[in-house]
Amino acid sequence: MSSRIREIAAKKKMRVAGLMSGTSVDGVDVAVVDITKQKVHLLAFDVFPYPPALRREILRLCRPESARLDNICHYNFVLGEVFADAIIKLCRKSSISLSSIDLVGSHGQTIYHNPRGRRYSRTTIRSTLQIGEPSVIAHRTGITTVADFRPRDIAAGGEGAPLVPYADYFLFGHNRLSRAVQNIGGIANVTFLPRCCKQDDIIAFDTGPGNMVIDSIIRLISGGKQRLDLAGKMAAQGTVDKSLLNEMLRHPFLRRRPPKSTGREEFGDFFANRIYQQAAQKGLSDFCLVATLTAFTANSIARAYHQFLPTMPDEVILCGGGSHNDTLVEMLRSELPNAKMLSTEDFGISVDAKEAVSFAILAWATINGLTNNVPGATGADRPVILGKIIPV
Amino acid sequence: MSSRIREIAAKKKMRVAGLMSGTSVDGVDVAVVDITKQKVHLLAFDVFPYPPALRREILRLCRPESARLDNICHYNFVLGEVFADAIIKLCRKSSISLSSIDLVGSHGQTIYHNPRGRRYSRTTIRSTLQIGEPSVIAHRTGITTVADFRPRDIAAGGEGAPLVPYADYFLFGHNRLSRAVQNIGGIANVTFLPRCCKQDDIIAFDTGPGNMVIDSIIRLISGGKQRLDLAGKMAAQGTVDKSLLNEMLRHPFLRRRPPKSTGREEFGDFFANRIYQQAAQKGLSDFCLVATLTAFTANSIARAYHQFLPTMPDEVILCGGGSHNDTLVEMLRSELPNAKMLSTEDFGISVDAKEAVSFAILAWATINGLTNNVPGATGADRPVILGKIIPV
Repeated sequence: MSSRIREIAAKKKMRVAGLMSGTSVDGVDVAVVDITKQKVHLLAFDVFPYPPALRREILRLCRPESARLDNICHYNFVLGEVFADAIIKLCRKSSISLSSIDLVGSHGQTIYHNPRGRRYSRTTIRSTLQIGEPSVIAHRTGITTVADFRPRDIAAGGEGAPLVPYADYFLFGHNRLSRAVQNIGGIANVTFLPRCCKQDDIIAFDTGPGNMVIDSIIRLISGGKQRLDLAGKMAAQGTVDKSLLNEMLRHPFLRRRPPKSTGREEFGDFFANRIYQQAAQKGLSDFCLVATLTAFTANSIARAYHQFLPTMPDEVILCGGGSHNDTLVEMLRSELPNAKMLSTEDFGISVDAKEAVSFAILAWATINGLTNNVPGATGADRPVILGKIIPV
Repeated sequence: MSSRIREIAAKKKMRVAGLMSGTSVDGVDVAVVDITKQKVHLLAFDVFPYPPALRREILRLCRPESARLDNICHYNFVLGEVFADAIIKLCRKSSISLSSIDLVGSHGQTIYHNPRGRRYSRTTIRSTLQIGEPSVIAHRTGITTVADFRPRDIAAGGEGAPLVPYADYFLFGHNRLSRAVQNIGGIANVTFLPRCCKQDDIIAFDTGPGNMVIDSIIRLISGGKQRLDLAGKMAAQGTVDKSLLNEMLRHPFLRRRPPKSTGREEFGDFFANRIYQQAAQKGLSDFCLVATLTAFTANSIARAYHQFLPTMPDEVILCGGGSHNDTLVEMLRSELPNAKMLSTEDFGISVDAKEAVSFAILAWATINGLTNNVPGATGADRPVILGKIIPV
């Protein structure tokens, strides 16, 4: 076997670069961490936005109507180069020697994901497709790379998502405290870690909307000039409309039992437009509308805990863009009065770096031969080792 | 690190299944071999043809006009299942215990390959795309899998092809003999191994047409009823037309210096149709036409040796479908009178199994941390370890 892989795996402290490029296709997040069995220490983090032309091309690759085979093949290698460049740039600006990095963990860019599956012969075949050729990352950086984590979970009968709960478990599992790691991105999702949690005990699911509906409404209100309610300042100036809130809380997704996941199909522009019109009919001010939507996110999270968690968490650890929204955090605090409200920052990991850090942790587990999917979150039949190792 | 990978790599004798699915998309070749540093022993081999509907779907995936993103994603996983099934079936019918297999090496099905590359920003990006999800192979069989060999060579500046020369070197490199491993598939290609050959000394390139032109003409003559000149029986009944032969031998590809590769663009149906019409104008009989085309393949191989090899080989080792063509082999023997004419069968490897065996050898090298591309064949800047390892 490659002596390099053996050397890396033998290390008590491993330096790992984690890469993540999300469905918004804004750019690639890169985090460099030192990992031991006990602890993860974040050394550097940055986001490298895609050039607009590249972003447009990748978005075209995400739709069956516009994705061409030759472009998929080409941009798989292009993104590999872009990802490798991002690691090299982050190292340079953070004065981290590239050669000090033992391992790269790269999620890649999802361009298609079919967790429900499609019939073939007598079976249903689930599938997923990420691009950003890891052989290019490994070659350009000279660093052993682990990538393509989702397919193995799908092979094991899972949906290939979510994968972050393993990292939540690794980072925040606690002997005396039960914890909920609450990510508030476009969609909000929770990883619940009971005290003395084992990998089998983890519960993880999407709680419902995160910032997606708020952001959509802000764009509608501002005629596209504003993209989000910075720090929740607009929401802070409004009053929650109880009747509209209660109507939104009747959304069928919120009642569905986990494991469950949602997306733009349920809380995208179509939903936002409908709410916008209802608010207009009611004569609701913009401030009150934004306040009500913010309460919708906070309430749907708290209700999910009450309905679907075996016990209420001692601590809630926030991450994702929504944790910058002070009004949202305040509302959540009042909905969950008995939980201590923290963020990943309290553990030295910026809320924005969390996802990239997660893929560093997943790669660390893979190279150590540890199973790193969470069957309770993905629906897989059993724990498996995720990913493909590219030796250098 | 996965203790399983370490265990496998430590083995003096490793049992490996090699999988290959070629551009003809007929089916998947599976070979099971025992590999030591000194020797490869073929235990079982079979071809598992694709169901016609699956073959049609895969062929649709190979053309940018008809390949759809959702289908690429779906059939990547379908082919993973088909490949895993093929291994399981071969083991069952050969009474090989699946659990005795240490490793799988899978080439996958190429659906796009762009070795010339395409501009992106200020660089040229080469790319290639194989499907047949190896995570599915690893999961279904429970066997550590190495796959996706071509991308790393491309990352290293190569064309990602040919990859078989490493296996030729491993199987046939000799201290006292220089050898040419001559594959005669649709296209013919040679791997030249000087005596005491090191990896850097290997020369490999396409010599020109193999069976492609002969097969095309046979289909034209027979109105599609016959697919090939079985054992060269038609060619044996004709006489070579010297003037047509000489004209064909002026084909510009044959004069081009290696490394070089060719395909249907140069020796496909268009070329065959032209020759067919010329033969008709000359009033050449079908037998004489087939004999002349057979001589074209034999002569283009012999000329390539004279022009481009540093010395003439002591031995020529034939493989590929063309080695079943007795007339072709006889012609080659008379063109290369000083070389001993052998086939891979003389080394215990059937000419049809050779490619699948090659990917078993490539996987063996990868898991042992050995560089296994041949820069002299692919144009890569340096030797690298090919492939991605999927741990189980």
